[in-house]
This record gives sequence, structure tokens and C-alpha cells, in this order.
Amino acid sequence: MPNTHNFLPVALAHACRLLNHGPTVLVTSSDGTRRNIMAAAWSMPVEFTPPRIAVVIDKQTFTRELIAASGTFAICLPGRALVDLTYAVGSTSGRTLDKFEHFGLGSETSSVLALPVLTTGCSAWLECRLIPERHAEDAYDTCFAEVVGAAADARIFRDGHWLFDEGNAALQTIHHLGGGNFAFAGDVVRAAAP
Amino acid sequence: MPNTHNFLPVALAHACRLLNHGPTVLVTSSDGTRRNIMAAAWSMPVEFTPPRIAVVIDKQTFTRELIAASGTFAICLPGRALVDLTYAVGSTSGRTLDKFEHFGLGSETSSVLALPVLTTGCSAWLECRLIPERHAEDAYDTCFAEVVGAAADARIFRDGHWLFDEGNAALQTIHHLGGGNFAFAGDVVRAAAP
Repeated sequence: MPNTHNFLPVALAHACRLLNHGPTVLVTSSDGTRRNIMAAAWSMPVEFTPPRIAVVIDKQTFTRELIAASGTFAICLPGRALVDLTYAVGSTSGRTLDKFEHFGLGSETSSVLALPVLTTGCSAWLECRLIPERHAEDAYDTCFAEVVGAAADARIFRDGHWLFDEGNAALQTIHHLGGGNFAFAGDVVRAAAP
Repeated sequence: MPNTHNFLPVALAHACRLLNHGPTVLVTSSDGTRRNIMAAAWSMPVEFTPPRIAVVIDKQTFTRELIAASGTFAICLPGRALVDLTYAVGSTSGRTLDKFEHFGLGSETSSVLALPVLTTGCSAWLECRLIPERHAEDAYDTCFAEVVGAAADARIFRDGHWLFDEGNAALQTIHHLGGGNFAFAGDVVRAAAP
């Protein structure tokens, strides 16, 4: 069941909070004709304003080929229900098959860059414009990008804040420990004011 | 109570697994005379072999000054019991006070680079040698580094694997959602084989 109707735009000033706690993400991309989806455990914000991120995407991947062609990609945040899918799309190449079709994924089209994004089972997506940094891309497979659009499921992220509770466990972020083992970030505590 | 006796060396081939799931970390540094500890929510591996990471450290911080002087830093992984401390050391500057003394932190000395590292309340530490990348440091506050030593508390990380269970909840990693709210990565599931 699509949950697009629960997605609301996220202010760009709050977009990096979506990645602040280190979730494993899905990277989606398209060159206009072909499209792809892959998993990435390694991403992080690098700046809040303007919102900028870094994500490690192996130079051998089809995704890198599509990003090189379009200069854009999206990041989607899978929830608990998508653990198997996240592991599966991270273990096959989109060069020889359309993984959206293969895995029966219904994608939406993002609002700013018209990229394919996943909403069902996901808590949020970010639309990113690559900041070409040839050396970092070559030496560390690290792609820097500016976030130019973001949206999140209002049941778990509202007014710039994550709101994890018992009612939205299925949308809570997943964190790959390695070897197909994922930790869930659910239980939340507020630190004492310093 | 120090738990140094539970710490065992981590093979360098497994070192990046310590950061794979996006924990919030403490960065420790020293120029031989002065030392510091700060919190960093933004770090990630960029390569398994050789083990390399990236971490965002603001160029205004005292830590960046110490790293520039020594070319090294360590990353410690705080557990649940250190949520308040993590938020506190991330909210004060070490330029005017020794945060180890101020917060009553007993530090150990890391084995390869002789850096101050925290073990009490932490699950692991990584010793890092900065890979000078002036542009990434300037433009994105992103410091690339090679991991040259690592150790972990055998109660939660053994033989290259995280082993989260009910018995080691206090050592489980913390993930900063923003504004002092931390999610715990505890509950673990294994994805179906693709």
C-alpha cells in the first residue's frame, strides 16, 4: 500500500537531520531512460546549510554510471519492513535487470529532480545534485552532493524532528551491522542539557 | 570502573565494521601536550581494505588544531551510559579547558599511535592517521583517514562481528537524531539471503 499521502515536504534547513543518525539508505538514480536502486550503508551529512551530504558509491556500480550521466541521485530511507529488500538490492547489479521491476517496487517521482523514489516502506527521501569532486570520487568513491529537495512520512518525521514511537516501528530506520545483520534505531532517550 | 580488560584488538580488515551502522562517536586527539575530546555524529567508512574513514570535524574546533599538529586522531564509540557525556562534550570547547579533567574521564593510551582513548562506557576505539586532503577539509570539513589500529570490548564485538544482545545493552551504540535526542541501535534482525 503506497504511503505517499503521508509524505510532506521537509524544509531544506532540516534535510540533513534525516541522515544525522547514520541510517543505511537506498540510492536511486536515472539517466532518463534507465533507472536503478542500490543500498548504501556509508553516507553522512557534511553541512546543514546549505544541506550537503557525502555518500560512498563504488565506481564499478551502475548507479555511478547513471549519476555521471544525470548529475543527480536520490536517497531513500528504508524502514524495518524493507530489511530483506535493502539487502537484496545491495547484492545484485542493475546493469542487467531493472531492479524496480524485478523486485516489484512501485516508485514515485520526486518533485524537484523527477527522480524515481521509493515511498512504500520508507520514511523519507532526499533529492541530491552531485557536486563534482573528481578526486574524492576517484580516490574514495565518495560523492558529495547538495540536497535540493526532501520529503518525509509525517508519521515519523515532522517539523524537522524524528519522532520514533511504538506506533511507527515499521518506518524506523535500519542500520547495517554487516553480513545482512541490521540494527533498528527505535528506543530513544533525551540527553541531559549540558 | 575501567573495562580495559575486556578490550581486544580488532583485525584491521574488520575495523570499518565498527562504523558501518552509523554510530555517533567521540573524537579524541592530542598534540603531545594538550588533548581534547569532542562528539561527532557525522562519520562513515569509505573503504574496507585498507580501512579508511571520513569524519566531519568543523575547522573552527580545537580538535582540528590538534589533528593538524599531530596528523592523527582516535574515534571512540560511546555506549548508552555515555549519552549525557556525548552531548556535553559536543557542546563545549576544549580550547579553554581539558575536557578529560573537567568531566572526570579516565583515558587509556592507544597502542599504535599513543592517543588518549576512552574505554569506560565505550564499546570500541579506532586509531586514525589523517590522509591530508586539503580541499575536502576546507570545503566540507571532511577529514579522510586510514585506520591503523582498533580494539573493541569483546562483550559486544568479537571476531569481526557486532553481537548486540540483552546482556550488553549498556555498551550498544548511540545515534544522534538531533537536539540531544539519541536513538539506540539495539534490536537486531538478520535479512533473508538474497
